[in-house]
Amino acid sequence: MTMAETEDRRANVQDSLRHITGLLQKHGLVESLVHRQQGPRQELVENLVQKLHLVELQKFLDALHPADIALILESLPLEQRLVVWELVKAEREGEILLEVSDAVRATLIENMDEQELVAAAEQLDTDEIADLAPDLPREVIQDVFKSLAPEEREQLRAAMSYPEGAVGALMDFDMISIRDDITIEVVLRYLRRMDEMPDHTDQLFVVDYAGRLKGLLAVNRLLVTDPETVVTAVMQTEPPRFRPNEKAHDAAQAFERYDLVSAAVVDEGGRLIGRVTVNTVMDYIREETDSDVLFAGGLRGEEDLFASVWKSVKNRWTWLAVNLVTAFIASRVIGLFEGSISKLVALAALMPIIAGISGNSGNQTTTMIVRALAVGQITAANARTLFAKEIGVSLLNGLIWGGVVGLFAFLIYHSWQLGVVMTGAMVLSLVLAAIMGVAIPLTMQRFGRDPAIGSSVMITALTDSGGFFIFLGLATLFLV
Amino acid sequence: MTMAETEDRRANVQDSLRHITGLLQKHGLVESLVHRQQGPRQELVENLVQKLHLVELQKFLDALHPADIALILESLPLEQRLVVWELVKAEREGEILLEVSDAVRATLIENMDEQELVAAAEQLDTDEIADLAPDLPREVIQDVFKSLAPEEREQLRAAMSYPEGAVGALMDFDMISIRDDITIEVVLRYLRRMDEMPDHTDQLFVVDYAGRLKGLLAVNRLLVTDPETVVTAVMQTEPPRFRPNEKAHDAAQAFERYDLVSAAVVDEGGRLIGRVTVNTVMDYIREETDSDVLFAGGLRGEEDLFASVWKSVKNRWTWLAVNLVTAFIASRVIGLFEGSISKLVALAALMPIIAGISGNSGNQTTTMIVRALAVGQITAANARTLFAKEIGVSLLNGLIWGGVVGLFAFLIYHSWQLGVVMTGAMVLSLVLAAIMGVAIPLTMQRFGRDPAIGSSVMITALTDSGGFFIFLGLATLFLV
Repeated sequence: MTMAETEDRRANVQDSLRHITGLLQKHGLVESLVHRQQGPRQELVENLVQKLHLVELQKFLDALHPADIALILESLPLEQRLVVWELVKAEREGEILLEVSDAVRATLIENMDEQELVAAAEQLDTDEIADLAPDLPREVIQDVFKSLAPEEREQLRAAMSYPEGAVGALMDFDMISIRDDITIEVVLRYLRRMDEMPDHTDQLFVVDYAGRLKGLLAVNRLLVTDPETVVTAVMQTEPPRFRPNEKAHDAAQAFERYDLVSAAVVDEGGRLIGRVTVNTVMDYIREETDSDVLFAGGLRGEEDLFASVWKSVKNRWTWLAVNLVTAFIASRVIGLFEGSISKLVALAALMPIIAGISGNSGNQTTTMIVRALAVGQITAANARTLFAKEIGVSLLNGLIWGGVVGLFAFLIYHSWQLGVVMTGAMVLSLVLAAIMGVAIPLTMQRFGRDPAIGSSVMITALTDSGGFFIFLGLATLFLV
Repeated sequence: MTMAETEDRRANVQDSLRHITGLLQKHGLVESLVHRQQGPRQELVENLVQKLHLVELQKFLDALHPADIALILESLPLEQRLVVWELVKAEREGEILLEVSDAVRATLIENMDEQELVAAAEQLDTDEIADLAPDLPREVIQDVFKSLAPEEREQLRAAMSYPEGAVGALMDFDMISIRDDITIEVVLRYLRRMDEMPDHTDQLFVVDYAGRLKGLLAVNRLLVTDPETVVTAVMQTEPPRFRPNEKAHDAAQAFERYDLVSAAVVDEGGRLIGRVTVNTVMDYIREETDSDVLFAGGLRGEEDLFASVWKSVKNRWTWLAVNLVTAFIASRVIGLFEGSISKLVALAALMPIIAGISGNSGNQTTTMIVRALAVGQITAANARTLFAKEIGVSLLNGLIWGGVVGLFAFLIYHSWQLGVVMTGAMVLSLVLAAIMGVAIPLTMQRFGRDPAIGSSVMITALTDSGGFFIFLGLATLFLV
């Protein structure tokens, strides 16, 4: 390494450090460190920045939870991110890779060699390796695979076989199962021989001789039950259970509704093959809602905050292209009425009002329907009631807001005819928006598409072109 | 009850039942019942519908989890909802009221008398009563208050004193605390004397003589540790802990990051006063993200799917009013250029393209920034890098999409000057959108406002008026 490179690197580290300390202060994470050192906080932070030893920074990182290091990595521009990443202890790389967002993970993996990646993956459980697998080079996976025990290989193969939205993809294999014909005493002795129990073990899974799930024994019940009792006498029968091919979305809803901490996953024959825990479910829900929010904002997926310009452009182009097409259509609808506009130029200034408000109103309806569909509140039986209600709302809104915009048009252009056309166009556009606002998500659902994705673009496209057409059409009929 | 009323009611029940069975089938909830009765499923359902006894429906409901009954109530139009509600056993009303959405809860409470409400509330824990309290009439709360033991009154008073977004509002009082100077053996004996342990007890809270939190003893550790060991030797020291006045949002993030199942809440003096559990946190996160999604769609809050037209109109008017104002402003911006439009009417057809695409692009930026702010990824140090990146993205997007729209304008109107103006306007509008897309959420955050609420309206308002102004302004300068 040349002198200049060293200098350069030091400056980077300095930046990162300032940055990290800033972040840490902000998240209150620095406090524990400060308390340990008994100095005033500000002083310590400044000292850290000034001392500026790589070692210091490394110690600092070592004391942090992997999830916090992940957050810091996500918050750093690429160069600084890589400096920090190099300082992270090799044996922690695996768990940190699991915590960072997909986009940031890709930037880290790009900068690791095969050997490092294999080492990082080998520290993880098989279900965790499966989570990383899509981002790892094929050779790395093969190497990791070879290093596993036969049973683990089987688990990894199983875990990798489920698609992202399936229960199988959330599953881990860290469960404790016991036989149903033993006493609590025996269970307690069995547990006491363990060094520790897996995280989130709120219950033991009771199986028969063939490994079929028979019931659940809550750990808390274990503690309050007479040791002489037989497991079957205190276990919960008919336990909630999932199949690995079920939708993760449905399993997540069950966790939310029934306040589960863990749940069994069984195969076709009812044999216990894994479990799902609440922390995985919480991460899944976070990803699900995040991707809805990002999608609603026109982003294809989570974007690295500091992605290159080119990567960002690629992440955003689909949406802009779709919107461009709908904008071209709306533009051609207006083009149909250029004759009317040239005779009455006020139409050009007024038309965006109609399109805009009916777009908003349609989106209100769609948002409500999409949410109701996601929780499963809409059936064939109540859909008609919903249509009726939304049309009622749009008629009332049409009269109220149509009245306001009509008055606006009258006050500015001193033509009561123009005002009346505005009001009429508003009512019609809002009714169109209401009908489409219910119909679009319902239709998408019926055809097996996710209504959360695309409903909003479609309704906006429709209300734009529709609003222009209705307003300019009415104006052409009655005013020009 | 008159004959007609009975008839009417029966029809309602029939509807509800069909409805409920539809729902149940859909959610797979009916299966257990079917299996128990050994008949083919379809037949049973039809039988149920045909038999149509209130008693049958009631039994049906009794077998369901409160969360499922809540879902059914939310999915039923008001009349049917009230029929089902009357059939629900009085002793389950409290827990069901806790599960339904705020809007639906209001419709149920409206139809209960004071006595029923007091009875329902009395079945709940104090922290749960506090959750219901804002929706209950004052007299009901007073009656409930009188019926409580002094210690519970204190808890209720405390729980009701925290605002909705605070940790205190998520807290419950069902924790088990132990002293630090005893052995595991003693702890086990203490637990064995209990009938059952509270839900989500993954750890015991270790306190000193004055009730100050000293550490945590994981239940799982309890099971694998030699009974002779003293608690202090195996407890986790420096446990994560929250203050009741902290933001619930921050506590929820800690649960997500550190995979917690429960966590302690302590007062100023470090004394243990309650705990937060993962199920409450999950509900909180769901509400938080739901309200973001609803807000992004222009709804003030969760709306009863079957609210009256009038209530829906009230729930939606704020947003429409705000958008109307921004639409009026955009309309007046266009009004400034009516002279140019009357000379070159193509401008009217082309201007929505510029405004639309820059609105989309600005929303992409804002969505990403709002999300990054929520997880705490943006600091003073990296904000500048972000601005630079977004401006870069908008310039590149401007050239790409500006080129496309320029070509579109040229192909339709056969004027290369018009094409060039389109391209230039697109670049400028996108840069404006990028700068504002970063600046608006950052500014809102700095002034202590929630950037998730309102950023999107503001950016759309700006890109609409701004896009029209830039395009029509350039056109006036160079074309007219």
